[in-house]
Amino acid sequence: MRIDLISVVPEMLECFFEHSILKRAREKGLAEIHVHNLRDYTTNKHRKVDDYPFGGEAGMVMQIQPIDACISALKAERDYDEVIFTSPDGQQFDQPMANSLSMLENIIILCGHYKGVDWRVREHLITKEISIGDFVLTGGELPAAVIADAVVRLLPGVIGDEQSALSDSFQDGLLAPPVYTRPADYNGWKVPDILLSGHEAKIAEWRYDQALERTRRLRPDLLK
Amino acid sequence: MRIDLISVVPEMLECFFEHSILKRAREKGLAEIHVHNLRDYTTNKHRKVDDYPFGGEAGMVMQIQPIDACISALKAERDYDEVIFTSPDGQQFDQPMANSLSMLENIIILCGHYKGVDWRVREHLITKEISIGDFVLTGGELPAAVIADAVVRLLPGVIGDEQSALSDSFQDGLLAPPVYTRPADYNGWKVPDILLSGHEAKIAEWRYDQALERTRRLRPDLLK
Repeated sequence: MRIDLISVVPEMLECFFEHSILKRAREKGLAEIHVHNLRDYTTNKHRKVDDYPFGGEAGMVMQIQPIDACISALKAERDYDEVIFTSPDGQQFDQPMANSLSMLENIIILCGHYKGVDWRVREHLITKEISIGDFVLTGGELPAAVIADAVVRLLPGVIGDEQSALSDSFQDGLLAPPVYTRPADYNGWKVPDILLSGHEAKIAEWRYDQALERTRRLRPDLLK
Repeated sequence: MRIDLISVVPEMLECFFEHSILKRAREKGLAEIHVHNLRDYTTNKHRKVDDYPFGGEAGMVMQIQPIDACISALKAERDYDEVIFTSPDGQQFDQPMANSLSMLENIIILCGHYKGVDWRVREHLITKEISIGDFVLTGGELPAAVIADAVVRLLPGVIGDEQSALSDSFQDGLLAPPVYTRPADYNGWKVPDILLSGHEAKIAEWRYDQALERTRRLRPDLLK
């Protein structure tokens, strides 16, 4: 899988990827991740990528020209399955979407910044708008990093232990059950006896009951 | 406002903050952001922070000892309003939560990693569990960065233009209307005439109509 990210602060993404699972995925040749500096695609000498909004409003708007130039340059090299834009009004990102994105070959993620991007970018160049939630961030870089992290960790071989990913929250439609590690007694706070019993079947049953009870209590919507 | 983040990959957070709005907030003295390496609080010589889960399961679990030591050291210095843990089964992060967190004085954010943290941490040391969405990530560092970014940008003086933050998506309960910038005609894709008209009242009306129409179509739940 190949992910091309387009950003006005490429350093932010690069340094994040350098310290994350994506580094391992890159080194193992399981994922190609490229970060492109939008300023490299401007035609003005100050490498400006934004301008004032038409109609007069606060904030700056990202211009269509460098975005179009960057996306066109990438598309000239290979076919892309999706050109994604991260925006608070996009489709809500969730685990099923992460699963299906992880099946794709090549995707572009455009990170918005400032007040937003020129609407024509969204109308003509973007194929999928994704939101990671109902909150506003300084830029689309964190959402893009979230999407890349959630997707790349699903690629076979990226995380050491595939069994671990399968028992994550949401993959079976339930919240994960509690986990405990040593010491069994910490300042009088104890690990449930059942987990120390060695009785595999009973432990599995306890875990399922806990997962179900927590899901019912905290996220009944997941059970519908 | 002061935010203390506890992580096993502090470099990831540090380098992200170094390239984000949080850097400016720090420099202007509007926010204090400290990243703590959990390994500095271990008592074992290999600085190990995780161990196998009781009851046998895939994945590693973060131990309570270094987490307790780090949180206790911080609490000995000052009072904290919240000790937050980022987890996919926490309370859903949204703009109202960002707004209320931005009113606090001191918060700690513990970033989970590996399979999860020892349950006793969540039972005894954490005051608030926050999820940024129904998806699984490699660690809690990205969610912590998301929370820090969303909260810090709301502090007075952090973003240049407060008017801009007020007209963001969600702050008025509506999705943001389309924005456009130069050129007015790009390859035949044109900016709506109304925005070039100079008629302020009509432009404001058009924006409101667009915001309302988009919210009705894409996020009718926000209007309830």
